[in-house]
Amino acid sequence: MNLTLDRSVKKEHLYLEVYHYYKELILKQKLLPGSKMPSLRKCAQELKLSRTTIENAYLQLAADGYIISKAQSGYYVTDIALKQHKPAASEHETLNPIRYDFASSGVDRESFRFELWRRYIKSALRQDERLLAYGEPQGESDFREALCDYIRERRNILCSPDDIVIGAGVQSLLHILCPLVKEKQTVSFPTPSFIQGSTVFRDYGFEVRYRNKDSGVVYVSPAHMTKWGEIMPVSRRLELIRYAAARDSLIIEDDFENEFVYLQKPTPSLFSLAGGQNVVYIGSFSRLLLPSIRISFMVLPPSLLPLYKEKAASYNQTASKAEQIALCQFIRDGHLAAQTRKLRRLYSAKLKQLLEAVQKVFGINARIQIGAAGTSLALTLPCSTPGAQLKKQALANGLRLQILKDTEQEVTVILSCSSMPGEDFIPACELLKETVETL
Amino acid sequence: MNLTLDRSVKKEHLYLEVYHYYKELILKQKLLPGSKMPSLRKCAQELKLSRTTIENAYLQLAADGYIISKAQSGYYVTDIALKQHKPAASEHETLNPIRYDFASSGVDRESFRFELWRRYIKSALRQDERLLAYGEPQGESDFREALCDYIRERRNILCSPDDIVIGAGVQSLLHILCPLVKEKQTVSFPTPSFIQGSTVFRDYGFEVRYRNKDSGVVYVSPAHMTKWGEIMPVSRRLELIRYAAARDSLIIEDDFENEFVYLQKPTPSLFSLAGGQNVVYIGSFSRLLLPSIRISFMVLPPSLLPLYKEKAASYNQTASKAEQIALCQFIRDGHLAAQTRKLRRLYSAKLKQLLEAVQKVFGINARIQIGAAGTSLALTLPCSTPGAQLKKQALANGLRLQILKDTEQEVTVILSCSSMPGEDFIPACELLKETVETL
Repeated sequence: MNLTLDRSVKKEHLYLEVYHYYKELILKQKLLPGSKMPSLRKCAQELKLSRTTIENAYLQLAADGYIISKAQSGYYVTDIALKQHKPAASEHETLNPIRYDFASSGVDRESFRFELWRRYIKSALRQDERLLAYGEPQGESDFREALCDYIRERRNILCSPDDIVIGAGVQSLLHILCPLVKEKQTVSFPTPSFIQGSTVFRDYGFEVRYRNKDSGVVYVSPAHMTKWGEIMPVSRRLELIRYAAARDSLIIEDDFENEFVYLQKPTPSLFSLAGGQNVVYIGSFSRLLLPSIRISFMVLPPSLLPLYKEKAASYNQTASKAEQIALCQFIRDGHLAAQTRKLRRLYSAKLKQLLEAVQKVFGINARIQIGAAGTSLALTLPCSTPGAQLKKQALANGLRLQILKDTEQEVTVILSCSSMPGEDFIPACELLKETVETL
Repeated sequence: MNLTLDRSVKKEHLYLEVYHYYKELILKQKLLPGSKMPSLRKCAQELKLSRTTIENAYLQLAADGYIISKAQSGYYVTDIALKQHKPAASEHETLNPIRYDFASSGVDRESFRFELWRRYIKSALRQDERLLAYGEPQGESDFREALCDYIRERRNILCSPDDIVIGAGVQSLLHILCPLVKEKQTVSFPTPSFIQGSTVFRDYGFEVRYRNKDSGVVYVSPAHMTKWGEIMPVSRRLELIRYAAARDSLIIEDDFENEFVYLQKPTPSLFSLAGGQNVVYIGSFSRLLLPSIRISFMVLPPSLLPLYKEKAASYNQTASKAEQIALCQFIRDGHLAAQTRKLRRLYSAKLKQLLEAVQKVFGINARIQIGAAGTSLALTLPCSTPGAQLKKQALANGLRLQILKDTEQEVTVILSCSSMPGEDFIPACELLKETVETL
């Protein structure tokens, strides 16, 4: 083997040297698809490294799709080298790989401290006894305690850990909530875009409406009223609470993106304004941590608690126990608060930078809508081609877009800055301009 | 500090020395509740260890509830030492700690290779790019591919990865399935004990029945017909398939514990016997791996696929992405198959040993029911006290029981061997005997 190891690297990173060596061989097709990798033992002997180091390298190669293991036989090179220039499976329509993604709601890739999170997960996975048992149906109790403290401090929400229900995402929570409030029969959403929410209510037989405050259940995201981050003013929040109370409607407050409100003071939650009456408060972590961490929670008001308690044991917990344990400790150690501060500063600056880029490319009079929160702005462009076609053509050019609406004369697109690096804003806007002009 | 470190232990275990040192101090109340722990820096200096080692020890102490961190302040000793002799929160009724648990459906604690699983999770958590994006609604595609191969090999189930839907537990799958088959209106379960299943169907407005094969949906667990592990014979499986086909009923085959059928040959699945028509196949890993890993999957038959595809994008994935990635690789590397073989051998031997223990303590004529699968047997005892009272008294004596049924003269209890060590079988049976006799 010709691998010259840089043995000065930290011992725990040696496996990466082995990983990169084989990755190169496979991508350059010096190791052909289908050929067998040397056995762990043999490879360890030749490189004078431990079997564990080689195994870690192989595991990583397998995880990244370069090799595949066959039981009782060993590792084999996949055909990844042949597929290299094919588009990703989820983007069948694209001809080019995506260069700029304005439609992503992922997190900024520089902002997440993977090493830190891995340490918390590792620590959680050391709790053998705890992981050998099923979790509490309502969610781990220490995690609910930590959440309770957290939302009291940050959102002035006064509740007990017993009022909190954990679930793997908002839908999992709605699957518990909907049957409890079935007799309300109608639900209102601010826009038709939150399909994940309306689908669940429809599945339970609810009539789904939009912007109709006479409904039995009123679902709102006060910190994300529109895709471009408008927030609900306090006066309207109070009005909504009074109206709902008079009609005995239930408000579901999905506090999505409340952490990204760039005002001096955070806007009070509906839950706290209503004194915890007739409001279900929902919070999530997908935009603060990793979108792939499926943990959300809801705070039930006193009116729903007895009903829930009766049925609680009939629902298994859906969120990963290890991730609940890790997140609990992560919150207690102050990392969630720190991450939130960091993201708020970052997104506030990025959104400003995106606005400047749009104005530079489309002119100072470009029709832009931008709110007090979030990570997106809306841009309306003169364009007689339907939005769907613009989206398709943009994708073919390597630009992913989200279309808000279109008329015969114009199209409104949503541009999100959250996961795009700042230096791409200008070239991405230029590509958008070019795409519209050559339609 | 009086900590004498055994510096001969492996470097990565040094933190455990620190952990045990402080744990002892806290439990013996040499460090009082509420007192502040030394700062990481100071502790590292005094012990001449790295800050990371101390931090790992503190993280573990915090994870186990001995200390708690306060943001921007440091770690404080909790009041765990005061609570030591209190019963666990979930067992308010117990006076004694549980010595023997016949009611647990956890896995045998010696059997799970934590170190191995941690390595797979660690490897999955290194895939930064992948974890920064939301998962595929249907479940990760490489994981579905691995599952597809696995169930073809082991259960002769022929399907494509596109037919497989992943979810965080069986309930999450039923939340997707129920709305697709709503017009069937009625569902039948083998017994009332699977509350998690019947609750979901009831929530969607289904009429729930028991052992009624004229229902629109027939839910069965062929490898777990009774709590004591009776399996459905092939003749009855075929009969059920024909009956369902004639009435256009849908069969849901929950293949729970099929891995623990101790026969020479595994019994064919209903899905394969029916050629994949009108059967939904459901599989889980909670009894093979860790109960805390929330991953299940279902294979949809051709009749339901178009309906599902239409709505697929409306449901977010509930299972943890990191755990899906880890399990995918774990299966590909043959570890799931190996773990299954190991557990089957282990449980088969343990069940035999439990049977012998029961016969030894309760006599050779004890009324025992035992099936061809599973990890439990049923024991019927003469007892004029109601089952609920027996259960309560047993718990007070430190023995956890599951009552199957009671009449005026007798009580049938289910004794599970899965998580109890073999050497406890005889003393646990003796305690049961004593409890019944002194009621």
